[in-house]
Amino acid sequence: MTNEQGDRIRLCLTELGADWAVLSGPDAVCYATGQPIPIETGPSPFTGGPALAVVGRSGGLGLVCSNVEASGPIEGVALETYAGFAGVVTDQLAGYRRAVEQMVRRLGVGGKLAVQLASHPASVNDLLAPGLSIDPLLNRVRAVKTPGEIAALRLAAAIASEGQRAARRLTRAGLSELEILNGIRAVIEDSAGARCPLAGEYVAGIEHTATLGSPPGARKLINGDPVICDLAPRIGGYWGDSCASFCLDTATDAWLAQYRRAKETLELAIATLRPGISVADFDSSLRAHMQNAGFSYPHHSGHGIGTSVHEWPRLVPDEPALIEENMVLMVEPGSYLPGIGGARCEHMLLVTATGAEIMTDFEMEPVL
Amino acid sequence: MTNEQGDRIRLCLTELGADWAVLSGPDAVCYATGQPIPIETGPSPFTGGPALAVVGRSGGLGLVCSNVEASGPIEGVALETYAGFAGVVTDQLAGYRRAVEQMVRRLGVGGKLAVQLASHPASVNDLLAPGLSIDPLLNRVRAVKTPGEIAALRLAAAIASEGQRAARRLTRAGLSELEILNGIRAVIEDSAGARCPLAGEYVAGIEHTATLGSPPGARKLINGDPVICDLAPRIGGYWGDSCASFCLDTATDAWLAQYRRAKETLELAIATLRPGISVADFDSSLRAHMQNAGFSYPHHSGHGIGTSVHEWPRLVPDEPALIEENMVLMVEPGSYLPGIGGARCEHMLLVTATGAEIMTDFEMEPVL
Repeated sequence: MTNEQGDRIRLCLTELGADWAVLSGPDAVCYATGQPIPIETGPSPFTGGPALAVVGRSGGLGLVCSNVEASGPIEGVALETYAGFAGVVTDQLAGYRRAVEQMVRRLGVGGKLAVQLASHPASVNDLLAPGLSIDPLLNRVRAVKTPGEIAALRLAAAIASEGQRAARRLTRAGLSELEILNGIRAVIEDSAGARCPLAGEYVAGIEHTATLGSPPGARKLINGDPVICDLAPRIGGYWGDSCASFCLDTATDAWLAQYRRAKETLELAIATLRPGISVADFDSSLRAHMQNAGFSYPHHSGHGIGTSVHEWPRLVPDEPALIEENMVLMVEPGSYLPGIGGARCEHMLLVTATGAEIMTDFEMEPVL
Repeated sequence: MTNEQGDRIRLCLTELGADWAVLSGPDAVCYATGQPIPIETGPSPFTGGPALAVVGRSGGLGLVCSNVEASGPIEGVALETYAGFAGVVTDQLAGYRRAVEQMVRRLGVGGKLAVQLASHPASVNDLLAPGLSIDPLLNRVRAVKTPGEIAALRLAAAIASEGQRAARRLTRAGLSELEILNGIRAVIEDSAGARCPLAGEYVAGIEHTATLGSPPGARKLINGDPVICDLAPRIGGYWGDSCASFCLDTATDAWLAQYRRAKETLELAIATLRPGISVADFDSSLRAHMQNAGFSYPHHSGHGIGTSVHEWPRLVPDEPALIEENMVLMVEPGSYLPGIGGARCEHMLLVTATGAEIMTDFEMEPVL
């Protein structure tokens, strides 16, 4: 997997006229090297700076990280580690710098550097002077997935889908949103065989589902509650994503009407997504389909996904980019109405030569 | 809470001869401003750089973060946000820079800056030139907790303890480590009323508990399994930590012997911890107590805790620092033996004027 992504990073370097890429975001480091960087408890206290991937225009691929971040040797990747976790007083900042110095010498990193400005650490400004910004170009290059990435995303989609199936089994009156979400998480992690970072949400009730951006809490479900279950686990460095909505026991006609329209809009997306159309046109056709029935959603229609849970392109009205084959896109139309509740339907879609393939696989019946 | 911690940061600035602190680690930002930064899914794709706190030597406290990171206004903290999440094409990097520029103008940030070299982003090198490194001094200042921090840590300790009580209820043969851990997580998050980052581990079986650093997996527990349950949730920006060990149904004499010695060593730590003794002496007294019974552990004896789950001082043999009143320290002696399994016992301890107060509260009976 590594080499294909390395080649795409090299395309960026050629276009930018840069000699080396220095990547410091955990998603970009995983993209370049295949090494998933632990993120679930924030920056590790056993590091002296962000894991760094270096990629040379004419070859060379290296990873600098602490001993708690490296899973082991990776074929084709030069690895320099330093003691982040040790049984004695440890200066991680100094260890990090020494490991970066080693890598610079070992691979001959130099010349004009293209870096990630949001995460390139000041500790190595002198060793790896931040020159050009690689992100605008790298984000675009990353949008079209390699075969290895598509395989990784299929696995993440399968495990997200398993989470959705668990959500239908585990949802019941008397349990809290957080209890149900953690029950789902247990199924996801058992399937993955390991703890996984989990984005998304599980919210229930008319008021809670009608409110965007309000996290799951301790309120216990009651019959009649609408539920929005948005599950995005990271499996081996690649994210899956998915959203189902349903009502517990009974649904109101008003909730069902918006739910059905959101689901139809997702089906329209699946039927119409293909290479060559513009994101803006695709986005506006989905919004129009909702609006023709009197509904709307105040968020993006979807987004790319890969080693980051949200990647370029975001499906928004003013994005002129064209859809390309082998993009993997989330599409997530929804509706959120005070007094009625909210609904959102989301699948992971692989853009094929002629259309779209649904990567996620779970039931979307509106009443449990 | 904010002002007391601001004052401590100002002490660092005075000692360093710096005019402003620019903090970019999420734990340091929370320390300075009281704003917990979401970390659970890594750096948010809806940010253009790390949240920044700025603290002026002669006053002034500001927070720059994206609209998805700010919980709302914080008394005494100047807030500059930018659109990280929006329904249109959004240049987060540019938004971040503009917000930093605003903050620099608004508070007059300038002169000599003390920064965090591991996370200070290259995007603002020109606006906030990285000068001195604040971490070595800041880490020491943070070790002695303010009254507001002690209250926050008490809450985190109480919720970690609730997790430990849940662990005893939920552990049973036929469930996997991950299922039990997520059941515990549900109890922790229900108590907290919100999702919480969770560090630590839940591992079971002779082989797994004898191996340090091996994460929880899908293996199902059987009777006779030793269990190490290390729970460290972050509640409102402050971490709790705790570790219990027990065997399911029956324990071998060999396991019980090492368990009892680890527990006695923790009790010795509680009885002897007090201001004025050196970390090195404290650490070596604990190691000696284990060794006198033929046991040992290949890790630190403990560590500080606060807005980071591991803080200075680490309790290691070569740390000459003296213990001070109002430090909050984890102490975690253990033993790990092939063929027998592992055990570790850990409490959160507040150093008082004359001794130590146990902040965590959970049962430590060795057989379930």
